[in-house]
Amino acid sequence: MEKERNFSEWFDRVLLEAEVLDTRYPVKGFTVYRGWGYRIVRAVARILEEKLEERGHEPMLFPVVIPEDAFKREAEHIRGFEAEVFWITRGGDTELPRKLLLRPTSETAIYPLFKYWIRSHADLPLKMHQTVTIYRYETKATRPLYRAREFLWNEAHTAHATPEDAERQVREGVEIYDQVFQRLGLSYLILRRPDFDKFAGAVYSIAFDAWNPDGKVNQIGTVHNLGDNFAKAFEITYEDESGDQRLVHQTCYGMGLGRVLACIIAQHGDDHGLVLPPEVAPIQVVIVPIPYKGYEEKLKDYCSEVLKVIQGGGLRVLLDDSEKMRPGEKFYHWEMFGVPVRVEAGPKEVEGRLVTLVRRDTLERVRVPLDETVQRIWALFDEIMENLRRRSRKALEERVSEALNLEELRRGIEERKIVKVNWCGDQDCALKIKEEVGGEVRGYRYDVEEEPSGPCIICGKAAEKIVYVSRTY
Amino acid sequence: MEKERNFSEWFDRVLLEAEVLDTRYPVKGFTVYRGWGYRIVRAVARILEEKLEERGHEPMLFPVVIPEDAFKREAEHIRGFEAEVFWITRGGDTELPRKLLLRPTSETAIYPLFKYWIRSHADLPLKMHQTVTIYRYETKATRPLYRAREFLWNEAHTAHATPEDAERQVREGVEIYDQVFQRLGLSYLILRRPDFDKFAGAVYSIAFDAWNPDGKVNQIGTVHNLGDNFAKAFEITYEDESGDQRLVHQTCYGMGLGRVLACIIAQHGDDHGLVLPPEVAPIQVVIVPIPYKGYEEKLKDYCSEVLKVIQGGGLRVLLDDSEKMRPGEKFYHWEMFGVPVRVEAGPKEVEGRLVTLVRRDTLERVRVPLDETVQRIWALFDEIMENLRRRSRKALEERVSEALNLEELRRGIEERKIVKVNWCGDQDCALKIKEEVGGEVRGYRYDVEEEPSGPCIICGKAAEKIVYVSRTY
Repeated sequence: MEKERNFSEWFDRVLLEAEVLDTRYPVKGFTVYRGWGYRIVRAVARILEEKLEERGHEPMLFPVVIPEDAFKREAEHIRGFEAEVFWITRGGDTELPRKLLLRPTSETAIYPLFKYWIRSHADLPLKMHQTVTIYRYETKATRPLYRAREFLWNEAHTAHATPEDAERQVREGVEIYDQVFQRLGLSYLILRRPDFDKFAGAVYSIAFDAWNPDGKVNQIGTVHNLGDNFAKAFEITYEDESGDQRLVHQTCYGMGLGRVLACIIAQHGDDHGLVLPPEVAPIQVVIVPIPYKGYEEKLKDYCSEVLKVIQGGGLRVLLDDSEKMRPGEKFYHWEMFGVPVRVEAGPKEVEGRLVTLVRRDTLERVRVPLDETVQRIWALFDEIMENLRRRSRKALEERVSEALNLEELRRGIEERKIVKVNWCGDQDCALKIKEEVGGEVRGYRYDVEEEPSGPCIICGKAAEKIVYVSRTY
Repeated sequence: MEKERNFSEWFDRVLLEAEVLDTRYPVKGFTVYRGWGYRIVRAVARILEEKLEERGHEPMLFPVVIPEDAFKREAEHIRGFEAEVFWITRGGDTELPRKLLLRPTSETAIYPLFKYWIRSHADLPLKMHQTVTIYRYETKATRPLYRAREFLWNEAHTAHATPEDAERQVREGVEIYDQVFQRLGLSYLILRRPDFDKFAGAVYSIAFDAWNPDGKVNQIGTVHNLGDNFAKAFEITYEDESGDQRLVHQTCYGMGLGRVLACIIAQHGDDHGLVLPPEVAPIQVVIVPIPYKGYEEKLKDYCSEVLKVIQGGGLRVLLDDSEKMRPGEKFYHWEMFGVPVRVEAGPKEVEGRLVTLVRRDTLERVRVPLDETVQRIWALFDEIMENLRRRSRKALEERVSEALNLEELRRGIEERKIVKVNWCGDQDCALKIKEEVGGEVRGYRYDVEEEPSGPCIICGKAAEKIVYVSRTY
């Protein structure tokens, strides 16, 4: 199994063997989250939800259906999504009087209610979020977790009295996402998308583009400043302190939870399978007894004791004492599932009241006294996260290159790099890049100021920005 | 606001004022969960999910769409649901080659995958659950939380090697639901439905019918023994220990989370608004300062201290120090939201290092020392739950009556009772009851053996069962 050499095959095999997804659901683009995969993605969702709620976003749940007329109120938005919505036209035997669509995103479901909830400046800012599935009738090839027709995400929507407050909210959104991704040890570029690639209806869009072993970036989150575009379309106004009616300013941000899961798998995984951040691992520690003739009873008692000790440390732990597999097979099995720490106990451990700890990320082993086990496992978790974070950051750095001409750019893209180039800001030049090298202009750094180092790589005119070019999902 | 005299109006007002739901979503039968309501229902879902997972149900997530051919594989099932499914017929501009429907329940989505996952007896029992929204194109009048076209529920599905193990699983399902409902202080009858009213495709169905102030019972959960009906339709077989292929035996159970929320509101609420079980209250304790001239600074400091003490006790607490409302208005506000305990602090409390605790269920007040506050609040929570449970049980007992003839039955139904009658087991007699009195035969007790006390109330023949008759949502 060769993650680097054949990422696509490796990824499919991990999804199947680690029981992340089942792709055999009989509708194209729709897949099933199995127990292990769903527990991971649920843990990610809960980290995000907690952070959003700490920062004042109320959890809500809006309907999956949107009426056609609401969907069509914002002109740019409808142009951006119309080609890829699923339409519900019938209920039972009856033609529906008004067609409904499955939400491809929820602006047009949520904002008609914002209109009711917002009366005065005292109602602002209004901040909400929901974790839901969304639906896009993708015509491109679908790919489990990366590009599906149904996908699990969290979306937040906010409304503000002033453009300044909406700007501040954009920064807060970026910060929250950054914190969640950092907790998971992921690496990515935070890019402001070029205008021609912004969210349909937005003033501007910021995206988190994560590196992927196959060289296509994986957009795991986006944050949008909507200005008053939707406020105009949905007539969302408030009474300001002097009694005037004003339009609100809005932001929204979405995190693709399936794509974050893909990113965890792709960035941290290795040829043995998943490597999970301990915080989102359904099982954090697995105990594998190493049987030895004459030690059966003692070993059994000792492993029960080890289990109790580790449970007492607040860890999610499993004692795998089944007799269906040999210890070596169990190692292989739980490595595939990405369990962060394996605890081995055999005769030597029993005699010395020790355990052997094996960390999943490096497979390094260390033998420690039983009464230090809990503390050592927690310390190992920190080390594992530090290592995953460092490895992922290094991989990103190695993947970013620069190009001063089309030839260098082409070579970079072929080598699965994310390539920095000087760009004049003209959409034609971006299209030319796509035609010539297959990579897309993803945008310029949001968090770092970068000055162009030369003229536009295509037209030779003065460059406006350094932009990042790569293939993409 | 009069819960007993005009339940329907009271209920709508609580939904709106306590920010449980917003019913103004512009599609009939679809409503929006607002922050307060969503937090409650999410807490209920998590209690259930935890219990299911403790008992070995793996959390999963299946697609919302089901292909027409899978849906039509089990003959009874399709007959039961066909009239009320939403059909997706188009994607973008294209007519879909195969129609899809929104799940009205997920048997026909899940069982094709069970076929892949089950090979041998070692794969059994297989137990999974998911918390999702389901869709039914109701032609009857819709009612928020009670009867909607989209509703939030949790469904569990299991497969077993033997009929006996499926029977055992039915009992486990009933036990889990019973435990969850007891934690919430709810009262209900556990009834085995008459054959003509069982789940489409089941061998038999058990339901939890909760009392409701308006006399219509609220079905908050159902547990079904599916026998091998779906196993036959979906060809789900396993290899037994002697190498033979055998059909699995299945069960499934669903809890309507929106209906459980309705039940919490309806059974525990009072004329002041919601009364929430502390475990699912988004805010468990609210601190309201009682200002007094000259005490402003001291009170502020003291309330901050009280807040810290209560937070330190692991409680979800809010200090409501806003100046927009007077204390009396705050009392009214947080009573509407059902916050279990209010903490008042004024000059006397500051001087004596005391707080006044007011419990929501009885509005009784008690003054306690600050350093006993946390412990007293936890004790109050227990008392509140005991009181809610007792009150609800008493209400159920008072609502159940008996009838030996049609006239008594009619009077009972008019008086909003759940009425016990002797029944011969014949569907015609049940239909006659419905025609004559508007109540439905809901079934006989599952958890208690009850012997008929006379002949069938309709035909006068020997009675088979004592059944419960009531109006219903």
